[in-house]
Amino acid sequence: VEAVTTPEPRPTITEVARLAGVGRSSAARALGNYGSVSPRTRERVQAAARELGYEANELARSMSTGETRTIGVVLADIANPFFAGVLRGVTDVCAAEGFDTIVVNTDENVERERAAVRLLVTKQVDGIVISPAGGAAADPRHLEAARERGVPVVQLDRTLSRFDGPAVVLDNRGAAYTATVELLRAGHRRIALAWGPWMAAPPTTVCDLEAGAELDLSTTRERLQGHLTALREAGVAPDPRLVMTGEQTAAGVAAFLGAMLDDDERPTAVVVTETDAALGVLQVLRERGLRCPDDLSVVGFDDAPWVQYLDPPLTVVRQPVQELGEGSARALFELVRNTEAVPSFVHLPATITRRRSVARV
Amino acid sequence: VEAVTTPEPRPTITEVARLAGVGRSSAARALGNYGSVSPRTRERVQAAARELGYEANELARSMSTGETRTIGVVLADIANPFFAGVLRGVTDVCAAEGFDTIVVNTDENVERERAAVRLLVTKQVDGIVISPAGGAAADPRHLEAARERGVPVVQLDRTLSRFDGPAVVLDNRGAAYTATVELLRAGHRRIALAWGPWMAAPPTTVCDLEAGAELDLSTTRERLQGHLTALREAGVAPDPRLVMTGEQTAAGVAAFLGAMLDDDERPTAVVVTETDAALGVLQVLRERGLRCPDDLSVVGFDDAPWVQYLDPPLTVVRQPVQELGEGSARALFELVRNTEAVPSFVHLPATITRRRSVARV
Repeated sequence: VEAVTTPEPRPTITEVARLAGVGRSSAARALGNYGSVSPRTRERVQAAARELGYEANELARSMSTGETRTIGVVLADIANPFFAGVLRGVTDVCAAEGFDTIVVNTDENVERERAAVRLLVTKQVDGIVISPAGGAAADPRHLEAARERGVPVVQLDRTLSRFDGPAVVLDNRGAAYTATVELLRAGHRRIALAWGPWMAAPPTTVCDLEAGAELDLSTTRERLQGHLTALREAGVAPDPRLVMTGEQTAAGVAAFLGAMLDDDERPTAVVVTETDAALGVLQVLRERGLRCPDDLSVVGFDDAPWVQYLDPPLTVVRQPVQELGEGSARALFELVRNTEAVPSFVHLPATITRRRSVARV
Repeated sequence: VEAVTTPEPRPTITEVARLAGVGRSSAARALGNYGSVSPRTRERVQAAARELGYEANELARSMSTGETRTIGVVLADIANPFFAGVLRGVTDVCAAEGFDTIVVNTDENVERERAAVRLLVTKQVDGIVISPAGGAAADPRHLEAARERGVPVVQLDRTLSRFDGPAVVLDNRGAAYTATVELLRAGHRRIALAWGPWMAAPPTTVCDLEAGAELDLSTTRERLQGHLTALREAGVAPDPRLVMTGEQTAAGVAAFLGAMLDDDERPTAVVVTETDAALGVLQVLRERGLRCPDDLSVVGFDDAPWVQYLDPPLTVVRQPVQELGEGSARALFELVRNTEAVPSFVHLPATITRRRSVARV
């Protein structure tokens, strides 16, 4: 453990003003390039600034233009590979536009999300890209407040039914439909869905289940719709017990499937709608000495680089994650630039990649 | 495709000044709480601000305090799971301190890194956490310039030998030593290292190789040192051909190992120093119809959640990735607060997790 030198403080406007022999506000006007200032004062302030190594800064520029060239990005957790890919897409577009990105994690906590949006507005970001937390659906006033203050908002991946703003989302209905059809074509009839909507009590009917989905995130709701549509088209009556309605995490998936697999009427296949949650499925199979796909067929979502090297390599519906981030940032810049017509919804389609996690029954 | 309403612009200082019947700079002083302003003017400006819904903002506050409560984070690629984990650690500490983080990806491009540091200084961030690009080692003047302007810099994961600043790093020497010893104990003698230092031409002697490492990143240099030390302690003469010195990517690892495995004196084991590069090893084995660990034993670095579900589950030296991010941010806040003694180096140790990718020979 060694000590390092404390850095020299950078020169302030006050020091520049003192050296130039003018008031602080005159110096600020001269350096920030706003308001009126005599040529003589401007010259003296600039000479003092050069002598002290003071540099006209972004803050002063922002004060006069009202533009911070910064975009706020609000999402659940950047350590989640899905959001890491999304964020990469957002920052790429922002960097190309000369904008910085301020990143906030909410961990799906609505209060943290509200505080983040308020703070970003106070910081005068030029716009916000947000993947809203599930609990925000009932009360999206924080997003309305941002927009009323002139900070445009683009929803990413998820939309809140009560907030009427532009969004860039994946085709979750189509993705879940495709995944379920893949299993139906292999002869499966008892197909579980992990996960469905979060519900306080397990649903006893499919009608209950669909009502529960109305209160959840758009992503969960649309995936359930795609799944149920595929079943009904194939003449399979949906069973509400096969849809996970508990804690929406990889651990929740493991708990749900564990209970399912111990049941007499156990499923022969499962659709897993989150990258990391597929690991929960593999864990539960390993714990019981069961094998995928012999004992349980699996179709996952997203196609991380490691998915093809799993045991077994997973069949997945592949969603364009980075494009999702890029598209959201582009939509936001259209709003920032006051383009008159902004597409309110952009759907990015999923494709299926077949590997070795689906068995014929 | 629908059109959405363009948002109401938020009120500017100019509009507040117009309504209050005062000059723009008086209004700015009254709202930003700096310089001198008569009580009467202040009152009129505040009334106008209330009427227009103008809110005293962070920029004005920053102008008067010189603090933006923002930390710049410069790293190679947030979509890389290693850096995603690191960034999560940094943002957690910053959020707890009430600071925002501006994130910049350099993709290991030194010019992009220099531009990013310059811009962050101009934006008056309160400090910078940086994982410097390899090419920056020869000329770290951009980091010195930031520090001279009073923006403290903490190096994360990697250090530049010519930049004498605090750093929080993993114990890369110890990690590579541990990985190599694990393979030596299983009886391996021809152990490859992917990757070693990048070199323009393949080294012909170990001395060449060590000289090449002097010019590369601290991480690569220290891992090579740990690897060579383990070999020498076991009485195994290092073979420079077994150390990868080409392109430092997962594809580079695949190309290097592909060539090695076609050789007569092929290695029986490999130490892979990057999470994703282990996938390059699995790819090359799959392409040749070879198996891990029967045909090649592998010890990887880092322990992503999916590593235990690979085929086979990998033995890895586990590095505390999130703690690395947290530690760097904490060191930076000590500098920001002008704490007199800041530890110049913090080493975070690695531990080994044994699975099924190492065979006895």
